[in-house]
Amino acid sequence: MHIIAVGGSDAGISAALRALEVDPGAEVTVVVADAYPNFSICGIPYYVSGEVPHWGNLAHRGIADLEAAGMALRLDATARRIDVADRRLLVTGADGGEDVLAWDQLVIGTGAVPARPPIAGLETLGPADGVHVLHSMDDSFAVMRTLEETSPESAVIVGAGYIGLELAEALCARGLAVTQVEQLPEMLPTVDPQLGALVRTELEAHGVTVLSGTAVREINRAEAGSAARLRVDAVTAAGEAVGLDAGLVMVVTGVRPETSLAASAGAALGERGAIWVNQAMRTGLPGVYAAGDCAITHHRLLGETWLPLGTTAHKQGRVAGENAAGGHREFAGSLGTQVVKVFDHAAARTGLRDHEAAAAGSDPVTVACEADDHKAYYPGSHKIAMRFTGDRATGRLLGVQLFGHKHAEIAKRIDIAAAAIYSGLSVDEVSDLDLSYTPPLGSPWDAIQAGAQAWTRRAGRT
Amino acid sequence: MHIIAVGGSDAGISAALRALEVDPGAEVTVVVADAYPNFSICGIPYYVSGEVPHWGNLAHRGIADLEAAGMALRLDATARRIDVADRRLLVTGADGGEDVLAWDQLVIGTGAVPARPPIAGLETLGPADGVHVLHSMDDSFAVMRTLEETSPESAVIVGAGYIGLELAEALCARGLAVTQVEQLPEMLPTVDPQLGALVRTELEAHGVTVLSGTAVREINRAEAGSAARLRVDAVTAAGEAVGLDAGLVMVVTGVRPETSLAASAGAALGERGAIWVNQAMRTGLPGVYAAGDCAITHHRLLGETWLPLGTTAHKQGRVAGENAAGGHREFAGSLGTQVVKVFDHAAARTGLRDHEAAAAGSDPVTVACEADDHKAYYPGSHKIAMRFTGDRATGRLLGVQLFGHKHAEIAKRIDIAAAAIYSGLSVDEVSDLDLSYTPPLGSPWDAIQAGAQAWTRRAGRT
Repeated sequence: MHIIAVGGSDAGISAALRALEVDPGAEVTVVVADAYPNFSICGIPYYVSGEVPHWGNLAHRGIADLEAAGMALRLDATARRIDVADRRLLVTGADGGEDVLAWDQLVIGTGAVPARPPIAGLETLGPADGVHVLHSMDDSFAVMRTLEETSPESAVIVGAGYIGLELAEALCARGLAVTQVEQLPEMLPTVDPQLGALVRTELEAHGVTVLSGTAVREINRAEAGSAARLRVDAVTAAGEAVGLDAGLVMVVTGVRPETSLAASAGAALGERGAIWVNQAMRTGLPGVYAAGDCAITHHRLLGETWLPLGTTAHKQGRVAGENAAGGHREFAGSLGTQVVKVFDHAAARTGLRDHEAAAAGSDPVTVACEADDHKAYYPGSHKIAMRFTGDRATGRLLGVQLFGHKHAEIAKRIDIAAAAIYSGLSVDEVSDLDLSYTPPLGSPWDAIQAGAQAWTRRAGRT
Repeated sequence: MHIIAVGGSDAGISAALRALEVDPGAEVTVVVADAYPNFSICGIPYYVSGEVPHWGNLAHRGIADLEAAGMALRLDATARRIDVADRRLLVTGADGGEDVLAWDQLVIGTGAVPARPPIAGLETLGPADGVHVLHSMDDSFAVMRTLEETSPESAVIVGAGYIGLELAEALCARGLAVTQVEQLPEMLPTVDPQLGALVRTELEAHGVTVLSGTAVREINRAEAGSAARLRVDAVTAAGEAVGLDAGLVMVVTGVRPETSLAASAGAALGERGAIWVNQAMRTGLPGVYAAGDCAITHHRLLGETWLPLGTTAHKQGRVAGENAAGGHREFAGSLGTQVVKVFDHAAARTGLRDHEAAAAGSDPVTVACEADDHKAYYPGSHKIAMRFTGDRATGRLLGVQLFGHKHAEIAKRIDIAAAAIYSGLSVDEVSDLDLSYTPPLGSPWDAIQAGAQAWTRRAGRT
């Protein structure tokens, strides 16, 4: 039994590890496009910031650990073609040499690649000019070279999603003057604008210049005599032109699934062009699985969607690996649970926002409220801003969004909500949960329960 | 409709608030034995420590807030006798004057009183001698008088449960030399001794002298010429005598339900002598409810038990108040979820420990493991020590215990487990939960999921 995983990031490595756990006798090979298997891509902003002093620290596990777990690694190897009928995989090495590997079960974990928004200049300008994307370790090395070799004093970050926000903080930590440009009306468009506005306040409190509702149209090398290397031209929603000088430009406007290997082998594609899989992570091709950012995401409330997240990649990879090794497991489904730290605060969400729930056929009610993270009489308490979305007819909890201090246990509070939604609880039942309490760390009714009760009152379901 | 709640703490006030929420037209009276309705008894240690500068801050709500919510308060009034047949309540005021109140529905929330362990001297020594219990606001004022008027340099704390540990920290914060004496073999006996030992290490690291397996036998006034006012004599499990001098002795060895009012009216008693109630919080007496520390606790895994906790009192009170106002709600049941901060760490539990699960008829397996609270490459990560208990046959999650840094989101991580147990999830399903991740606040598999996977592996259920 030879299992090959294509891709050395979360999905591929999780598949390999799980396959070896389920069948220690299996032969497992991971084909890795670069020299950095099992790196924490989510940690790159903290390497850029200097908080992680050496890039090597970003490895979830070292190469020796992975090999000790029983897998063979083919580093700097690119998977070129899948022969489904004969169960072969053509790979090329760094020297261009070809090799054909036989497999019994194949897990495709080719991930995603940065989206290239329609900005003039992006095709010609690159890292050597100070214009960067950020997705792979090589991308992060290129950013570090620009930072160290050109000592830019200013940066423009195009995009205010998770990575954009983390980069704003990282570049501020390095002393750059940061301007964050977001095309949509508010920061962190994956949460409601009321919470996005709180993210904006936090950015501005730390010196970031925030331009929302502003679309970048063009990036150019600056004219001679300019203070910085690059010139960014943008336009506001009102049609006003905005010109920005920058020593560094980061374009972080999302990703798209990397599916060419699978598609050329005949795999069906699904939502957003990602590889279609069932909940066992099987593509339609015999013996071929896909997992992670390259594959569609089964969502517990939405069905088939595409929602690339590291947590999901780990879970999908684990399911694919288990099944490739002869197991029978299904991916239980995503709720799109996410958290991001922005300077001293954190924003998080799980489940659906109001418009997403409405689009999915619910009759949602969304209620905003706030509560203390712990009893206000004990020093250091912080308000948590909350938005609860539930279904008017059934009372079922559909989604929660939170914003609060980084020590307000925002991440694990959203996880309580995620656990509740996973189990299909009603908003009202959240009040029935037996949650912990001590004055320095909570309240007799936790903030999450105060939010649930506010929803129940305002939705008229008391 | 006149609803009377007897007791101005969590259960009584929650009942009154909920009754008014459900039926704004109801007449609601709360009979409060002292002048401090709706105080956070759990916050007293932080008033003793000085972290809460004024006792008034401990009020969840002020008297004006409570009255604005629509309830009448009878302060310094003691409920003496319930006449069930005529639906009357005899109360006496501070001046001894009697009054008879008519009720349609009555909620008994008389709470608990400190247990008096069999220690010679406890009957005769009291606050004036520097020997204290700690349960009411008056108790805390007495402790503060001893601290301020006699400036003790040393304290002996008898008991190492939640309150005992919080008091050890509080008195250390005030500069006293603290000795903590626990009769059982390890600190915080409500968690497994492996975690109790970590609590001990934390106490000792902050200068507390810890004597476990040591029973206090006698407290006496010190002899003339002694350095301190009091002498505590104890004996170790090995039979060795231990003598301790102390300027202050706190006896915090737990509580027992205060049931005399209910019992004399003919209410049936249940577990540990607490007032029996069904899940609607009805006693057997017509129109009479009981809630909080005075009543039994319906436990989701154990059935009827007695587990006095502030969180439970709030929930039971809310159910009693809703039903007293004509509603139809049942207490969903406790899981005994608890957390305590001990200096810079926190210890928490939910559900059952191994021996509790075995006594309840399960075939438990308990697995110890540890995981980082967030990615170790990001600064400030901490190990979380975990103990997972699951049922060997069904794989069902039965209990989790955690110990870790106070910023390691221990409180809300135990709540994720509490939510999982509430919904009857298997240990394996905990890995399926879609929990949040960002490197500064978590891991792709949260610590809770790493613990679940360790359990599944070691229980041989992979």
